[in-house]
Amino acid sequence: MINISNVVDRIREIIDDETVIQLKDELNGYHEADLADIFQELKPEERLRCFTLLEIEKAADLIEYLPPQMQVELLGEIDEDLASKILTQLPHDAAADVLGDMEDDASETYLDKLPHKFSEEVRELLTYNEDTAGGIMNPAVLTVNSDMSVTDVLNHIRSKAELDNMELYYVYVVDKQKHLLGVVSLRKLLTSPINQKVEDIMISDIVKLHVDDYSDYIVDEFMKYQYNALPVVDLYNRLKGMITWDDVHDLVEEETTEEIYQSSGISTELVDEDEILSGNIVNAVRARTPWLFITLLGEFIAVNVAHYFDHTLEALPIIAIFMPLLAGLGGNIGTQSITLMVRGFSTGQVSINSALHYILREMLIGLVIGTTFGFLVSMVTWGWQHNIELGLIVGLAMAINMTMATVIGTFTPFALKAAKIDPAVASGPVIATTIDVLGLAIYFTLVSTFLVNVL
Amino acid sequence: MINISNVVDRIREIIDDETVIQLKDELNGYHEADLADIFQELKPEERLRCFTLLEIEKAADLIEYLPPQMQVELLGEIDEDLASKILTQLPHDAAADVLGDMEDDASETYLDKLPHKFSEEVRELLTYNEDTAGGIMNPAVLTVNSDMSVTDVLNHIRSKAELDNMELYYVYVVDKQKHLLGVVSLRKLLTSPINQKVEDIMISDIVKLHVDDYSDYIVDEFMKYQYNALPVVDLYNRLKGMITWDDVHDLVEEETTEEIYQSSGISTELVDEDEILSGNIVNAVRARTPWLFITLLGEFIAVNVAHYFDHTLEALPIIAIFMPLLAGLGGNIGTQSITLMVRGFSTGQVSINSALHYILREMLIGLVIGTTFGFLVSMVTWGWQHNIELGLIVGLAMAINMTMATVIGTFTPFALKAAKIDPAVASGPVIATTIDVLGLAIYFTLVSTFLVNVL
Repeated sequence: MINISNVVDRIREIIDDETVIQLKDELNGYHEADLADIFQELKPEERLRCFTLLEIEKAADLIEYLPPQMQVELLGEIDEDLASKILTQLPHDAAADVLGDMEDDASETYLDKLPHKFSEEVRELLTYNEDTAGGIMNPAVLTVNSDMSVTDVLNHIRSKAELDNMELYYVYVVDKQKHLLGVVSLRKLLTSPINQKVEDIMISDIVKLHVDDYSDYIVDEFMKYQYNALPVVDLYNRLKGMITWDDVHDLVEEETTEEIYQSSGISTELVDEDEILSGNIVNAVRARTPWLFITLLGEFIAVNVAHYFDHTLEALPIIAIFMPLLAGLGGNIGTQSITLMVRGFSTGQVSINSALHYILREMLIGLVIGTTFGFLVSMVTWGWQHNIELGLIVGLAMAINMTMATVIGTFTPFALKAAKIDPAVASGPVIATTIDVLGLAIYFTLVSTFLVNVL
Repeated sequence: MINISNVVDRIREIIDDETVIQLKDELNGYHEADLADIFQELKPEERLRCFTLLEIEKAADLIEYLPPQMQVELLGEIDEDLASKILTQLPHDAAADVLGDMEDDASETYLDKLPHKFSEEVRELLTYNEDTAGGIMNPAVLTVNSDMSVTDVLNHIRSKAELDNMELYYVYVVDKQKHLLGVVSLRKLLTSPINQKVEDIMISDIVKLHVDDYSDYIVDEFMKYQYNALPVVDLYNRLKGMITWDDVHDLVEEETTEEIYQSSGISTELVDEDEILSGNIVNAVRARTPWLFITLLGEFIAVNVAHYFDHTLEALPIIAIFMPLLAGLGGNIGTQSITLMVRGFSTGQVSINSALHYILREMLIGLVIGTTFGFLVSMVTWGWQHNIELGLIVGLAMAINMTMATVIGTFTPFALKAAKIDPAVASGPVIATTIDVLGLAIYFTLVSTFLVNVL
């Protein structure tokens, strides 16, 4: 990998020197993935300047790696004919993604300028929901007929594949109406006798996606069975396109981001996950407020619990100072348990049948860590406040609180899962608040029972 | 996808009925990825029973999908000759992984039983660190000489590839000493004139991995440049093997798990990430204690801050009941900011140069949400406690606390990144505690300045 910020500095120097040829050579020498990183660091006017110096193919390769708003920004500011040329160089699915992110009039203008066949295919792609197989697939697929021989197919590939910039993992066998009949891997093709018929070497028990399948299903299929590519068919089993590993790669990154966002109470249901980090502030606020609001309601319950014990607080104000300690550690260890369970569900390592096993296991861990920390806290409090009873109560509350936190943090994801609610979405903030409320109740009950009367 | 628990129930019924042939048919009909899920649900004795009924190739395919301890368990309990036959069916890298997880004597016994060439290659793989390219790669690679023609290569593939169960994406061009000279994609091979020399169509400016490259580097390379496969060379540029997408798939899942674990303060540095969820309890406690202990120290500072204001607490015990509310919401919104930045660093959307932009953006979001929530809390507290001054102070503390939390939650990951410390590892618990400490200090200062004197 290259050091992006060094490169950016060098490019800025060349821009300042106004030596166009040198800049052109420099830019066209980078891999498009590196160029994308470089472009993200440049200022908009530098970016535009550099973009116009790229060769058309390089510019098209780069476009695929850029975030949507930058794609639209760059293509919108260059000459329309040049932009159309670049769009034509893109795979159909990438072109549809870019055009789909533009205003309707702008995308219509480009579609009219593109070669007829290309624009027809892109228009069809634009009719699919972008989160479904139809919106993700590439319609350029190499198809053959079942009565062709291996040699015929190899000749067909030789004549066809370079032309259409197709991805080659499998050859799909279809009938005249484009119904999908079978699939032959390149490997099988290259290792079978050359006069064998395709229908004799094809796999006809095909795993396929439907145009309306959602992206999370597609990711699960690819991740579980580790396919390189899957065909996409319509309701009538007509082959419409294929989805390859590199399409899924982007989806996986998006899903991981959503999973991580959700774990800290950032909702990805209301606002597209791209918008939350860098889009409009209003969207960011919308995505972040719902779970904070639920936390607010939950913490008001905690306030009420504390208020219920206000005679205890009045009698012994010192006990208030340990509240953050108890809440902080209970919250942290509980969050660890939630994280382990939620991640375990999504990797498949944890299943609903093993609920009891994990609850008991986590309870044991909570008990071990809670007792240790409780003992430490008892000792420190005793030494500091010279009050052994206070030390014992705070330590005991700590041990109970941490053990309870692991149990709640483990039990709740299983309960949500059993109720068919996604544990990733609902767990974090709700559980943290529940632990706060119960932790306070336990602490004040201990204090009012054993301490206020004793002292 | 199939419904695993229905299948497991059906399989249990067949096991009970003792109809071996039916069970055999049922089991061998599933995809190995589904079988792996089914096996995880079965009890050990059911698992062993079912495993012995699988065809050898199916058993080998299944082994690749099972977690390490189950691989070792199953192979250890079946006949040694059968186990050797299954091992021989595995790709070299998978065989090395399985043998590497066994006790040394056990793996030696198997290595002695395997065909000589196979066991030699596996032994070499076992000398590499399992987290490096050498430990991950598959040594079975299709190589050709630079003076071969396209036809020669195609004939070579036809004679060779089926035999060795190689993965076919690229053909690697080497000299007699196995030095890597170039790479030709299957696509290029299939679309070039058949009498062209390989050296004329190969790419000689090759992206390659070194046997000692670490898995996180490998993941970054594959994710960034979206390769299907990369060659692995030794110090002298001799081709040792290749790493393909499906190898990286497992690494990506592991890295994501580590990232998610670290975000909730579960250390993956001390204990292997596999061990934390389901291994020895002692390891789980070791992984979870360090950051909890740091939280403990941090929360003791919070206790001291509260203690510093104990005259305020004595004068006005009611203020204590709002502590969980302030800490809970400050912690939550701060965690959201950390999560966004840490995830942004790992996807490359956030870079160190944009620190100021993100700090200001998050501060604005904190201000908007904090002011709204502060206003709500003021109103509720006023209505509930009939005390407008208390309501105003709690609301003001809430607004300041939430804004401060977003700033700290954004600033700290950038500061850690600048200091070359991985923000994912250090951020969560430290920042949550800092927010607790500062939040309390602000709240008590407001109370003691404006409230205690006023009332």
